[in-house]
Amino acid sequence: MSTPLRLGIAGLGTVGMGVLKIIRRHGEMLAARAGRAIEISAVSARSRDKDRGISLSAYAWEDDPVALARREDVDVFVELMGGSDGPAKAATEAAIAAGKDVVTANKAMLAIHGQALAEAAEAKGHVIRFEAAVAGGIPVMKALTEGLAGNEITRVMGVMNGTCNYILTRMQGAGLSYDEVFEEARRLGYLEADPTLDVGGIDAAHKLALLASVAFGTRVAFDAVEIEGIERITIEDIHQAADMGFRIKLLGVAQMTARGLEQRMSPCLVPADSPLGQLEGGTNMVVLEGDSAGQIVLRGAGAGEGPTASAVMSDVIDIARHTRIPTFGQPARSLATAKPARAATPAPWYLRMQLEDKPGALARIAAVLGESGISINRMRQYGHEEPTAPVLIVTHKTTREALDHALPRLGDTGVLAGEPVAIRIEDV
Amino acid sequence: MSTPLRLGIAGLGTVGMGVLKIIRRHGEMLAARAGRAIEISAVSARSRDKDRGISLSAYAWEDDPVALARREDVDVFVELMGGSDGPAKAATEAAIAAGKDVVTANKAMLAIHGQALAEAAEAKGHVIRFEAAVAGGIPVMKALTEGLAGNEITRVMGVMNGTCNYILTRMQGAGLSYDEVFEEARRLGYLEADPTLDVGGIDAAHKLALLASVAFGTRVAFDAVEIEGIERITIEDIHQAADMGFRIKLLGVAQMTARGLEQRMSPCLVPADSPLGQLEGGTNMVVLEGDSAGQIVLRGAGAGEGPTASAVMSDVIDIARHTRIPTFGQPARSLATAKPARAATPAPWYLRMQLEDKPGALARIAAVLGESGISINRMRQYGHEEPTAPVLIVTHKTTREALDHALPRLGDTGVLAGEPVAIRIEDV
Repeated sequence: MSTPLRLGIAGLGTVGMGVLKIIRRHGEMLAARAGRAIEISAVSARSRDKDRGISLSAYAWEDDPVALARREDVDVFVELMGGSDGPAKAATEAAIAAGKDVVTANKAMLAIHGQALAEAAEAKGHVIRFEAAVAGGIPVMKALTEGLAGNEITRVMGVMNGTCNYILTRMQGAGLSYDEVFEEARRLGYLEADPTLDVGGIDAAHKLALLASVAFGTRVAFDAVEIEGIERITIEDIHQAADMGFRIKLLGVAQMTARGLEQRMSPCLVPADSPLGQLEGGTNMVVLEGDSAGQIVLRGAGAGEGPTASAVMSDVIDIARHTRIPTFGQPARSLATAKPARAATPAPWYLRMQLEDKPGALARIAAVLGESGISINRMRQYGHEEPTAPVLIVTHKTTREALDHALPRLGDTGVLAGEPVAIRIEDV
Repeated sequence: MSTPLRLGIAGLGTVGMGVLKIIRRHGEMLAARAGRAIEISAVSARSRDKDRGISLSAYAWEDDPVALARREDVDVFVELMGGSDGPAKAATEAAIAAGKDVVTANKAMLAIHGQALAEAAEAKGHVIRFEAAVAGGIPVMKALTEGLAGNEITRVMGVMNGTCNYILTRMQGAGLSYDEVFEEARRLGYLEADPTLDVGGIDAAHKLALLASVAFGTRVAFDAVEIEGIERITIEDIHQAADMGFRIKLLGVAQMTARGLEQRMSPCLVPADSPLGQLEGGTNMVVLEGDSAGQIVLRGAGAGEGPTASAVMSDVIDIARHTRIPTFGQPARSLATAKPARAATPAPWYLRMQLEDKPGALARIAAVLGESGISINRMRQYGHEEPTAPVLIVTHKTTREALDHALPRLGDTGVLAGEPVAIRIEDV
């Protein structure tokens, strides 16, 4: 058996402590699988004295994660602090400069600085791995980068923010408003310190940008992700989408088209009986589509101590086993720069509007859609006691351009109360 | 870029031709991902002259797969002939003896000879990889062996024979008998030459034994798998299970218990709204449960040219990237010999019987169950015009021993027509 692999862990929050527990609990099993012992040399965190329920006396302590990253007795720097910049980035850079491999759960750092960090690591012959950054315990980066490496990837999709999926499924299950469930999620501790990272779709967009890079061999382009959060989804949207056989999900989709790389993270309708439609609560799901493998669906816990630590350990064991895959599946310098394309793949859309109760009102709406080249697949007008009636329309496949042409003109008809709501229906 | 990786492919059926097509279509992409070109040096198949739609003139031809396996210009022997013994085994042994790595889709060969083959390869410092042998295009061996390597695996389950799942879901969808759908599957070419490999559960049991070995660090023990096929499932079973909210699946389950390793491949009831219950047609699903990651569900095509070739290429690219994981996740000589345990984990059971229309008949049944320590969760008696009435019972969790005690005694009551049917309900 070879020499032990020695870790330096920076960040002892939920995930860091989870990693520490796995290594303490499963030493023998890990050594059998990795072919060598996996040890922790040193740790670092904001507070040394916090009661974590486990003694840290067996490990050297560093107040400064940069110092930890440079220690001679550390082979792999495990970055679990989070934050796109600041100490996480400084320590990762120090680890690379000192010739260490890096394992990180930091989607924000990689979505923004991944290209530079990967190039620096690869110039030194070292690797940065990030299984834990995307979809928690689901081994999705491994499935994509290695399992489907023989495939031209045609599309990647995913529900990758458990908090948003919890909010949306809880609204539907309990018939509660967005604001009510948002407050509930806050009380339960499900929200990031800055909740717009969750409900604004940013956290999930970081993950999508990382998946897209590996899927299409392109540089991470987080800035090019079209992001729309779930803040404007109402309980009426959810109920009425359900009436039409759909669920609303914060869905990320990346696909390469003739016009360039589409990346969007936005509320979408999916069929209620599809795997994505049936996804409840905080669970994550990622769908990978390859030209040979077809559609591969992966489902599991997207967050939490155990699942995220499991993903960190997968990367650590890979390094212990001498598996050395480039961060984005091929050398970072060989990644292409994708032309960003505004989401343009034609799709059916769901339109919801409040129609004034005037003769000919529906005809006006239908006329505007027809003039914009949008044809109606299904339409439903609800009975009503107010002076306006809810109307739902599912269109046939249409382009975003046609929709952008139609939406302001629908407003101009003078037969609508308020703005129409338009949500894309994703073909899953 | 390093020297090319040179393959010798034995077997040019559906899968072999699929591999050949991927390498021809995606040469540049594969080289970018693998860090080196992947080339085919030589091929072998039963008939050289068969029209395969693609010229083989670029590759050396060998009539004898053993000669192919020994060629100096072959780095990786790709075994796609099938069959547990005969040419597949002889050529694999020759490849190992000649110091080649091996990639195979041959579940039967590995389920029976995997231990010896892996030991021989590892003694030479070479690897045998078999992603394509289990669940087709789903990268499940990689997810288990690498993605969940930090987990103690608690249970592995799967629907891994697409033909059986096609038959069962088609029976339900069309209301057809087993025999009718079996004939249909035969006409469509879905069945193996020896159909008992499919419907008898043997093919799926091979896969389960391979999964169990990696999951629990134990030697493959195919002989210890309790196997029951789907031949005795009637359309009444399917309809009446559906009435109670269940689907019938040919489900493989492996779990380590205090009594030893349970491995069973048998028809089970699963909730209709669970991911396994919703699995339609030829699709495969594997569920991996780890102590840290929780439940990971993987779903995709379990067979076919593209999916199976995709899995073969995953192994080939791993080897090109110098990833060298032992066949069963740890050195074959370090695998433990598991004590086989008869499936004993308590579970609820579904019982179906035809009750004679006699006063007190139901009381007799209930009394026998009570005397055997089996308590009834739900019971349903159907209206009837015949002299016997269908009765369905869902028990609370009970042991197999209790059930084995009860079943003959139910027959002895004299109030049943025919034998009672008992199907385990798996907690998924």
